[in-house]
Amino acid sequence: MEQHVKHYCGIFGTYGTPEAAHNTVLGLHALQHRGEESCGITTGDGKHIHTHKGMGQVSDVFADASDIARLTGHLAIGHNRYSTTGSDNIVNAQPFVAECRDGSIAVAHNGNLTNTADLRSSMQETGAIFQTTTDSELILHLIARSPEPEISNRVADALKQIQGAYSLVFATENKLIAARDPHGFRPLCLGQLGDAWVVASESCALDIISARYIRDIEPGELVVIDENGLRTHTFASVEKKAFCIFEYIYFSRPDSLIFGDNVDKTRRSLGKQLAKEHPADADIVIAVPDSSNTAAMGYAEASGIKHEIGLIRNHYVGRTFITPGQGNRGAKVRLKFNPVRGVLNGKRVVVIEDSIVRGTTLRHLVRMIRDAGALEVHVRISCPPIVAPCFYGIDFQTTKELIAGESTVEEIREHLGVDSLGYLSLEGMIKVAPNAGRQYCTACFSRDYPIPVGDTVSKLILEK
Amino acid sequence: MEQHVKHYCGIFGTYGTPEAAHNTVLGLHALQHRGEESCGITTGDGKHIHTHKGMGQVSDVFADASDIARLTGHLAIGHNRYSTTGSDNIVNAQPFVAECRDGSIAVAHNGNLTNTADLRSSMQETGAIFQTTTDSELILHLIARSPEPEISNRVADALKQIQGAYSLVFATENKLIAARDPHGFRPLCLGQLGDAWVVASESCALDIISARYIRDIEPGELVVIDENGLRTHTFASVEKKAFCIFEYIYFSRPDSLIFGDNVDKTRRSLGKQLAKEHPADADIVIAVPDSSNTAAMGYAEASGIKHEIGLIRNHYVGRTFITPGQGNRGAKVRLKFNPVRGVLNGKRVVVIEDSIVRGTTLRHLVRMIRDAGALEVHVRISCPPIVAPCFYGIDFQTTKELIAGESTVEEIREHLGVDSLGYLSLEGMIKVAPNAGRQYCTACFSRDYPIPVGDTVSKLILEK
Amino acid sequence: MEQHVKHYCGIFGTYGTPEAAHNTVLGLHALQHRGEESCGITTGDGKHIHTHKGMGQVSDVFADASDIARLTGHLAIGHNRYSTTGSDNIVNAQPFVAECRDGSIAVAHNGNLTNTADLRSSMQETGAIFQTTTDSELILHLIARSPEPEISNRVADALKQIQGAYSLVFATENKLIAARDPHGFRPLCLGQLGDAWVVASESCALDIISARYIRDIEPGELVVIDENGLRTHTFASVEKKAFCIFEYIYFSRPDSLIFGDNVDKTRRSLGKQLAKEHPADADIVIAVPDSSNTAAMGYAEASGIKHEIGLIRNHYVGRTFITPGQGNRGAKVRLKFNPVRGVLNGKRVVVIEDSIVRGTTLRHLVRMIRDAGALEVHVRISCPPIVAPCFYGIDFQTTKELIAGESTVEEIREHLGVDSLGYLSLEGMIKVAPNAGRQYCTACFSRDYPIPVGDTVSKLILEK
Amino acid sequence: MEQHVKHYCGIFGTYGTPEAAHNTVLGLHALQHRGEESCGITTGDGKHIHTHKGMGQVSDVFADASDIARLTGHLAIGHNRYSTTGSDNIVNAQPFVAECRDGSIAVAHNGNLTNTADLRSSMQETGAIFQTTTDSELILHLIARSPEPEISNRVADALKQIQGAYSLVFATENKLIAARDPHGFRPLCLGQLGDAWVVASESCALDIISARYIRDIEPGELVVIDENGLRTHTFASVEKKAFCIFEYIYFSRPDSLIFGDNVDKTRRSLGKQLAKEHPADADIVIAVPDSSNTAAMGYAEASGIKHEIGLIRNHYVGRTFITPGQGNRGAKVRLKFNPVRGVLNGKRVVVIEDSIVRGTTLRHLVRMIRDAGALEVHVRISCPPIVAPCFYGIDFQTTKELIAGESTVEEIREHLGVDSLGYLSLEGMIKVAPNAGRQYCTACFSRDYPIPVGDTVSKLILEK
Repeated sequence: MEQHVKHYCGIFGTYGTPEAAHNTVLGLHALQHRGEESCGITTGDGKHIHTHKGMGQVSDVFADASDIARLTGHLAIGHNRYSTTGSDNIVNAQPFVAECRDGSIAVAHNGNLTNTADLRSSMQETGAIFQTTTDSELILHLIARSPEPEISNRVADALKQIQGAYSLVFATENKLIAARDPHGFRPLCLGQLGDAWVVASESCALDIISARYIRDIEPGELVVIDENGLRTHTFASVEKKAFCIFEYIYFSRPDSLIFGDNVDKTRRSLGKQLAKEHPADADIVIAVPDSSNTAAMGYAEASGIKHEIGLIRNHYVGRTFITPGQGNRGAKVRLKFNPVRGVLNGKRVVVIEDSIVRGTTLRHLVRMIRDAGALEVHVRISCPPIVAPCFYGIDFQTTKELIAGESTVEEIREHLGVDSLGYLSLEGMIKVAPNAGRQYCTACFSRDYPIPVGDTVSKLILEK
Repeated sequence: MEQHVKHYCGIFGTYGTPEAAHNTVLGLHALQHRGEESCGITTGDGKHIHTHKGMGQVSDVFADASDIARLTGHLAIGHNRYSTTGSDNIVNAQPFVAECRDGSIAVAHNGNLTNTADLRSSMQETGAIFQTTTDSELILHLIARSPEPEISNRVADALKQIQGAYSLVFATENKLIAARDPHGFRPLCLGQLGDAWVVASESCALDIISARYIRDIEPGELVVIDENGLRTHTFASVEKKAFCIFEYIYFSRPDSLIFGDNVDKTRRSLGKQLAKEHPADADIVIAVPDSSNTAAMGYAEASGIKHEIGLIRNHYVGRTFITPGQGNRGAKVRLKFNPVRGVLNGKRVVVIEDSIVRGTTLRHLVRMIRDAGALEVHVRISCPPIVAPCFYGIDFQTTKELIAGESTVEEIREHLGVDSLGYLSLEGMIKVAPNAGRQYCTACFSRDYPIPVGDTVSKLILEK
Repeated sequence: MEQHVKHYCGIFGTYGTPEAAHNTVLGLHALQHRGEESCGITTGDGKHIHTHKGMGQVSDVFADASDIARLTGHLAIGHNRYSTTGSDNIVNAQPFVAECRDGSIAVAHNGNLTNTADLRSSMQETGAIFQTTTDSELILHLIARSPEPEISNRVADALKQIQGAYSLVFATENKLIAARDPHGFRPLCLGQLGDAWVVASESCALDIISARYIRDIEPGELVVIDENGLRTHTFASVEKKAFCIFEYIYFSRPDSLIFGDNVDKTRRSLGKQLAKEHPADADIVIAVPDSSNTAAMGYAEASGIKHEIGLIRNHYVGRTFITPGQGNRGAKVRLKFNPVRGVLNGKRVVVIEDSIVRGTTLRHLVRMIRDAGALEVHVRISCPPIVAPCFYGIDFQTTKELIAGESTVEEIREHLGVDSLGYLSLEGMIKVAPNAGRQYCTACFSRDYPIPVGDTVSKLILEK
Repeated sequence: MEQHVKHYCGIFGTYGTPEAAHNTVLGLHALQHRGEESCGITTGDGKHIHTHKGMGQVSDVFADASDIARLTGHLAIGHNRYSTTGSDNIVNAQPFVAECRDGSIAVAHNGNLTNTADLRSSMQETGAIFQTTTDSELILHLIARSPEPEISNRVADALKQIQGAYSLVFATENKLIAARDPHGFRPLCLGQLGDAWVVASESCALDIISARYIRDIEPGELVVIDENGLRTHTFASVEKKAFCIFEYIYFSRPDSLIFGDNVDKTRRSLGKQLAKEHPADADIVIAVPDSSNTAAMGYAEASGIKHEIGLIRNHYVGRTFITPGQGNRGAKVRLKFNPVRGVLNGKRVVVIEDSIVRGTTLRHLVRMIRDAGALEVHVRISCPPIVAPCFYGIDFQTTKELIAGESTVEEIREHLGVDSLGYLSLEGMIKVAPNAGRQYCTACFSRDYPIPVGDTVSKLILEK
């Protein structure tokens, strides 16, 4: 069993409608980009909870309408999971469900805890058994062990013991509970649809069911929704918040509100700032679609260089054709992107990309763009170099996997084979991020970790 | 969550061969008749354990050779599960795996515990969480909570706390452990294949891999097999054993040794005794295939009446054609059995059946036999009337489901619409059972329960 | 494309009930033993025909009730196909459907034509195209080319041009047509269920829907059923009939009437005659289940030797576990059969088998029986040695595949490793076959072919 | 059987590489947007042809590498099919394969024939049978009936008899043949990869395998490629060509060359022209992604209005969640598109859409844009109103289905609920289309049909 499964995920919850399961299916569909490996839903009908989960996308796992129909009840939580481990294991799919002394409880989690190893071993010493390596199971153990009689207090009790990044939704037979860690690493917003309450990782999941965005769940806030309505508690607070700035750069959908602000607008600002910091003498600006589209628009607007569509993305699934044997990265890139020769030929091209992790895909794209006749290729990245791993839920596991962790910008430029390379500065990024002055986690760019990470964890991760 | 899932199952384990997973697949195939709902295998390779399980028969769940290939290691356990509950739930599939303080442990279980409700609630009081309703999870909790440093002692510790029927196999990273409850309700035998050890519910699972039957695991015996070889412990003993006599009557395959004796021979003896107790003035003897074939031979031999094949069983899966709407039992019977008109027409027929639970299928068969021209139909049952539920692992859950629980033999005869009906007597059955004088559980015939069943349990079961 | 696909198959048809599709599903289920590779149904509703077919057994192909529901209409034909070729090709699945000048026609075929090569090439010369290698497509071409205005005359026209073995059912939008070749190689019977007519390869398919057997479709008879009722024509006749005697020996279900006589009774007679011809000094008689069960009973009865169940057959699908690499035949046999040690140990055993093709399975069974402790093994075969290929629909393709084609009985005995081996004589077989004097095809035993086979065909087949 | 199945499709062929099947898989993946219903590949290895086809996308049908491995040979053709009929019928999947007098031939077709009804009935009169309703089967019949000895002459013979739109690829055991109808309705281009030849509907399918675009197959050209290299024939010619202008507007991928010109550039020109013809007093320009992205860029550039991303498209499959019962169009639109509130709120918005068929989706989008706070919505369409059905392969079947067929622009504006609506003019479209003066088919806009359509056909289509 792997000790640490890093992942980003999408979570959703709703209370107060007979359409709870159906709306959760739609919400998970809108959040599909946050995790495609597995998904699941648990509902509560006042007396029982019901769960359906499986490997694959929402449209696969919930393809059979009768599976949705069986998820009766007026409250529901759901989860999309993306895992970087090889183990496509149904056992790790969420919501994770347990029966405790006074009923059932299910949890869905987005984030990554940093003190799990110690908590696990201390619990195992006293006879606890673990069936998965997920943080979710650990959290349920903590809740079950709390002596508090009230479920909300038991959840608060548990949350006080864990450290790291977490946005959580819980379902019991008759309650929906949502919580966000005191640093506020991962997003979680609250909405309303008629009398029903909705919580979701991103507001695009409210939009799909025509729910109205109300506000974000606050860092350190615990919200309990049941027949008595919505009650809110502050279970913990920290001096400095640490909103994940990468949600703006890459993760979230551009139509979402994240931390209360519009993702799309932020990306345009990043692109404009990038143009100021790293202008280029070029004929056209193109994006690596789709995640860099808006930043490219910003860059074009600020620089006055013409914006073109120079790469076409094929959205059909193609990965199955690449056999492991031949499986070179170049072929995979070609299945997904195609250059538009008529646009690129004879041109000096600025390519906007949101970020570079290893740089392999981008290197292949650059080669394709050159083969299509581009005279010069200037790459501009709408965030700073990623130099350090993330311990709070993003899949940058080790410094070795990060090209900027071990190379200078000039070395990366050479590796990519481009005429120039410019990264947005840390200061520039923070300056144009929403609500300048707000506290962001920039650890992957700055090595400035908001939560000190236990030696065991960091050793495990860095060694991989 | 249902409190009590009754089932019969097949278990298998092997230690000491690189073919551990493959041999377990074959063993489970031979034990398929003991459970078709789900199956799974866990292997240990010295450092890690590996599990693959799923819904369906062995040929479905292990259809993909790569799934077997991933189950590396020199030891393995496997499980076939039959459940009577509606919940075809992957969560309940076995082996059940947990990570404890000093490593992983997996368990596969055949039987039914009788004191689980109390154990569960007392553990939940102290913060334990349960993810399933299986006895297996409960057993792993008990093991994890034992303060003993040695795994074998911890298992013994756990077994001393549970009551009821259980044959168990456990796998850790480097140990195979097998145990049988002190009453010896369910079978479990030990065999050898070269240097490798094998344990299995029935000896037919040894035969399929050409392993040699050595002996039964004794009631109350705990066997640990690892790099130091096989060690045996007696963790408990009771004055009177309680071997399930129904294994001879119906469950087990006729080519198996059960409790050390040949099933086929026993069934022939039951048939002979039945002929002595309930002769018939008839032209031919036929069996309800396949489970009654041997008893019919015994009856024919002892009575001198000609043995014929009067019913053909269609082994192809047909249940899918019966839609719930039309789903009358008669149609299902017709999909499975067809009378041989040329054999039955104009004849006085003795029909041998191994047992009657509800009597619905038999009633339809009798009608078909009459429609095929039989002049008289005399039914003979090779066991006594089943009058009481089983709390030790057979799916006779409530008295209401048992026709003999609420009707006299004459009423049953009338219900079946036959000219005469004869059940083997309890005394006759015990007399010809192997090793007369051996102690059998006959509770379902005699209401004489070897283990008193808690009020809660019996109420739950009887009420259903 | 292979020129000749040999196969045996099951066909079914019904006219005059809104349950036409559903009854055909049940009929095909009863005929499943005649072909498991693919199956399909075509219905006619007066205006349109509707077809559903697929690879696999009836329970797979018609698992989805909505597929049956779409097969509307008052008439239906169905087909089970078994093919010996590697090509599991959906294209060859039947019914085969074509649109001709005056509507649609579908056909399902059991048998094998002997003059297809010439017919195909002459049609191809004039521009016909073929999409399959099936006889069915050829027959539809012939029907389409007939100048006759009436469909029944066009079918008769076509049948006069083909040679070989065929039982056929056709469906048009409003007619059910059935025909049997003039020699009567393959069976085809007629039944009634209320006002509806039914035709089927075997009467067990009538039984499953509670239809009444009326009579066989006669050799050379063409039956047309439509709103005007049933009309019968004799389209051809031959001096000597040639009923396939192998239907009695192995193919058909023992509960079927074939050629108007009971299969089970015939098998018992074959067993008795075998005992007379080849007695044995032995303790027990056992069958290779299930096809030899009745013959074994006959042998036991006539010889006075005790009948026992010495081999248990596992009806669960196990073939998927045998990877091509390891795939030796011995492992496959062990997955399917297990000896009953308690029955065989220390005994002199007579093993009854219905027939020997290659002898590989039997050789493995004999070894297993000896390993189980049998002192002597005497094999008795309830038909003569199979020495020559069948051109009329059975899968004995080349002399090389037939052990008796190239070896003496003594050589076969040695190959099997048995103490004695006895085959039923040709004369003995004919003598006890139903309606002695009736004309059977015995070509595979006698090399006496009722229809001379074109050089091309026989060369193709013999060379394989 | 439906008489007329309209569809657009993608075709691909290659000759001269052992990677023929694998390259065809990649080519079909690049052409997936032209048809998702079914796909298939036929290869020729000099002696035999091999076919694999199935329902679903390329990644489904060719998910199993062994299926590709079985498609041996140095030449291959492939097909993606989109059908508008309810019949998801495997029988209609292509390539369509037939065995003729001198070997096998397979065909894949893009387009729609206009004189099939007459050809079919005249062939049926002389005994031909049809198994599908596809044009492909008809073409193979014509080839089979040609008296010419040479296959290329027989193909030419067949093509002279058919009318309508067709781009075709054929495979025999050792030849790849490609042809395009004399009007040149559908595209077909020729490329080279090393020594191997490639033909494809669009050049993006050359790009994915790094093949070089050489030229288009000319209208009326027949190309035969075999061991003697590539030969070209002109089998027919017409005075006026009729290139489908809709390929530029919507069908083709923007990175493709179509009719030798760049799709992306054309779309930008259409957008610019649209801005000239229908300016708007607005704050932002947004596209309906992805097909209108480039036109929106052109509009923004020419108008000087700021280009924004105002709608996000969810590329995950969501259609399975919409049960037929609730299945309103609005829910489907919401699963696919989401407005970006932060972009739209308080803005006067120009929405660029490539075309309007029924207008239902657009109406829902407009409502969503208004709900997101847009002050004004001005819709601009980058082609003229579609007023008439297409008989040459596009799925505009009846005038009734076309909102512009029966409504004025003002009525459509009102139906959409927008502040203004502007369509590109026919003259404007032709003026900026590549190679002004080139002859395009504009029948769906102008009712000016290049080929008169038989009464039967047009009646059938118009009546639907």
